Amino acid sequence: MNSPLSGLRLQLRLRIYKDDLLFGTGIAELMEKVDRDGSMSAACREMGMAYSKGWKIVRRAENQLGYPLMDGKRGGSGGGKMVLTSQGRELLDRYREMENEINRLAQEVFTRYFPDKK
Amino acid sequence: MNSPLSGLRLQLRLRIYKDDLLFGTGIAELMEKVDRDGSMSAACREMGMAYSKGWKIVRRAENQLGYPLMDGKRGGSGGGKMVLTSQGRELLDRYREMENEINRLAQEVFTRYFPDKK
Repeated sequence: MNSPLSGLRLQLRLRIYKDDLLFGTGIAELMEKVDRDGSMSAACREMGMAYSKGWKIVRRAENQLGYPLMDGKRGGSGGGKMVLTSQGRELLDRYREMENEINRLAQEVFTRYFPDKK
Repeated sequence: MNSPLSGLRLQLRLRIYKDDLLFGTGIAELMEKVDRDGSMSAACREMGMAYSKGWKIVRRAENQLGYPLMDGKRGGSGGGKMVLTSQGRELLDRYREMENEINRLAQEVFTRYFPDKK
């Protein structure tokens, strides 16, 4: 019979706060989709997120950072193509590398505390 | 002038899944309050959580674990005093130690990736 702790998985969620929520898994995913498709509305749709919510998250981060994460014409008929700014891309890359490293360490610790998880 | 990345804080949220969500920060906090006050309704109230939601979380974990996390008479007039089972306490302690260790490592990594956060 399996241990009740067999088959466990650890999921991590990171959030960076300044005065308010600044960056995290959600905005990172949003930016990656915008980077791929050039469209904020498509990115929000894919994440099941309201378009206005998507912009709120981006604006909140930008206001605290003091620089833009994305560039392009917002809305309008057909909308404009959105791209990440170089500062936005740098922050996104830095965040993802950090997240990967933390996740790797966390999985090691998890395996040590729950060795019967396999 | 401060760097736009000064004053950042990293917040971690851990969740352990088996077939379904099994354990995490929420249920750990709930169990600690029950342990302190002996009352599930008081614990749920303090967390701003519906009583039924609290039990749902506990039952979902217990069903996957195959052992009880809490013991006591549920509901009734005045309700019964709830206590953590020894297995429940062991799991809670193990989880909190793991969480502390992961959090400590995560904060170190965070400082390395965002050295201008201070």
